[in-house]
Amino acid sequence: MTTLAALTNHQIRLAARPNGLPTRDGWSFTTEPVAEPAEGGVLVKVNALSLDPAMRGWMNEGKSYIPPVGIGEVMRAGGVGTVIASKSAAFAVGDTVSCTPGVQEYCLIPAEQFKRQGLFKIDLRLGTPTQWLNVLGMPGMTGYFGLMDVGQPKPGETVVVSGAAGAVGQTVGQLAKLKGCRVVGIAGGAAKCDWVVKELGFDACIDYKAGDVKAGLKEHCPKGVDIYFDNVGGEILDAVLARLAMKARIIICGAISQYNNTTPVQGPKNYLSLLVHRARMEGIVVFDYAPRFPQAVAELAGYLKDGRMKSKEDVVFGIDTFPETLLKLFNGENFGKLVLEVAKA
Amino acid sequence: MTTLAALTNHQIRLAARPNGLPTRDGWSFTTEPVAEPAEGGVLVKVNALSLDPAMRGWMNEGKSYIPPVGIGEVMRAGGVGTVIASKSAAFAVGDTVSCTPGVQEYCLIPAEQFKRQGLFKIDLRLGTPTQWLNVLGMPGMTGYFGLMDVGQPKPGETVVVSGAAGAVGQTVGQLAKLKGCRVVGIAGGAAKCDWVVKELGFDACIDYKAGDVKAGLKEHCPKGVDIYFDNVGGEILDAVLARLAMKARIIICGAISQYNNTTPVQGPKNYLSLLVHRARMEGIVVFDYAPRFPQAVAELAGYLKDGRMKSKEDVVFGIDTFPETLLKLFNGENFGKLVLEVAKA
Repeated sequence: MTTLAALTNHQIRLAARPNGLPTRDGWSFTTEPVAEPAEGGVLVKVNALSLDPAMRGWMNEGKSYIPPVGIGEVMRAGGVGTVIASKSAAFAVGDTVSCTPGVQEYCLIPAEQFKRQGLFKIDLRLGTPTQWLNVLGMPGMTGYFGLMDVGQPKPGETVVVSGAAGAVGQTVGQLAKLKGCRVVGIAGGAAKCDWVVKELGFDACIDYKAGDVKAGLKEHCPKGVDIYFDNVGGEILDAVLARLAMKARIIICGAISQYNNTTPVQGPKNYLSLLVHRARMEGIVVFDYAPRFPQAVAELAGYLKDGRMKSKEDVVFGIDTFPETLLKLFNGENFGKLVLEVAKA
Repeated sequence: MTTLAALTNHQIRLAARPNGLPTRDGWSFTTEPVAEPAEGGVLVKVNALSLDPAMRGWMNEGKSYIPPVGIGEVMRAGGVGTVIASKSAAFAVGDTVSCTPGVQEYCLIPAEQFKRQGLFKIDLRLGTPTQWLNVLGMPGMTGYFGLMDVGQPKPGETVVVSGAAGAVGQTVGQLAKLKGCRVVGIAGGAAKCDWVVKELGFDACIDYKAGDVKAGLKEHCPKGVDIYFDNVGGEILDAVLARLAMKARIIICGAISQYNNTTPVQGPKNYLSLLVHRARMEGIVVFDYAPRFPQAVAELAGYLKDGRMKSKEDVVFGIDTFPETLLKLFNGENFGKLVLEVAKA
């Protein structure tokens, strides 16, 4: 057994609430000794962390669907790792687990925190550790339940998804294809758009960096948009609102274009299209669906296994790169689900 | 029988599409002789017209839930009147009818237009002619199906309705009370707010002209807002979004605050509250529910009959006053359902 006392835990803590894009001086870098778990608890060595747009929201003061990260606290992050010490009958040393370790190298999880931290053993036969942060993790669950429960796709309907090459977008688009829909992605840059169409099998993908999203929607959604899965908000949401089909459903998953605003959020000025088209716009928070995650994981893992679904992760190594790596999400540089690898497996 | 040839039909036609508030010079005033109906048709003498916020939308160019009124056409308006000549077996001279006569004194309706113009005989035992333009007419139907079908109120829930003293608002609020909800209105001025609370039985009414809608919502909706029936849009919609309860439903019926904008519509900048609260925002167009109008009319007429529901109409006489009377809607001067009386009964 490793001598835990010999290990140092590098951590990244929220030092100040950002105004606009988070900068390196808004973080503090601390070290702590690694301790034995108490009775019933486990110690996890973090392998990889999930970097998500939602993290930006957790850095703000104020009421949301989850409490903000406190100043001085280790930044919240989901991740996968290995149990390296256990005083729990449910976990053995060597188990690969998913949990919410935060941005640090080691995470001590007391028994009473197992549920809150979402600790569970992952089955590597269903997917790789990074797939467990992607299609089989929170982004995949968000895409699955947002599309299936809120969107309720019917074969032949047109589904549009923004952030199409991102973690949620790749799940939504591929799943919608499997459910018999016409799928149009929106992504930034020719490389992502090509990948989404050629590798993931979307019917089309609109490059919002290349120009006119409205014209692209008109071309690729001749019968209007039945379902829009929105990860971005802003101008793109307005462009889709202007192109709704009757009884359209808009799933509000996030608004990455607005998270670093220093001015108020840009509300969708075309929202009265909801009235004209008897359409609805509905928010989703993935945690509400936790009891049904196993069912969704089983379905998605089946698609990954038989090749009907693909996944792509953009893996960056080094916990110290966290401040800059996180920004890749907000300037659209990540290509696939953004993962911070903390330790080589 | 009246000699039809002796009658003159005064009409008001759309002369130009308005930019901002419609002004008198955007209308043209024409006269036409009154003609006999063709085989199968009827001639209706208009008694009263319904003036509605939606009329402003019909004056704009462009795609909506209904085609715009063409330049030079008689302005579209619903109304009630009396059949004064009939070549239809379904209608007799003297019948009181509801239809879409437009802003004119007489309306010739050919048989093939009966359905499109919504022509039907009204039962004066169920309500007065002006009640047939209010609680038993389109505003009442809009309130009924918006609240019941889209809102799906449950006893004990908190329902907020803007334009509370208006035609749709009075129906929504009273109906929500009858369904066991806590009801908070939003209206302009102490007189309307008093009436809504003291006469209609709302639990509270916030005077948006007197000040802080947010503070009023906080005071009167301590558990948040479960259902918001929105007739106004703009700042008030944002204030309610900031006060949603979990799983809230927002019915988008209209946005009177935005209809005369010369700048783009103000989108709801707090729309991400839909995400935080897993809430939905959905548009309604009353015509979709036409097959179920009789059922709703029967229920609402029952409430009017036994005094559980009241109605208030703001009746202005004289077709020539139409341009100015319409503006009462947009400056909030109407107190109750705005009706233009064209001929004394």
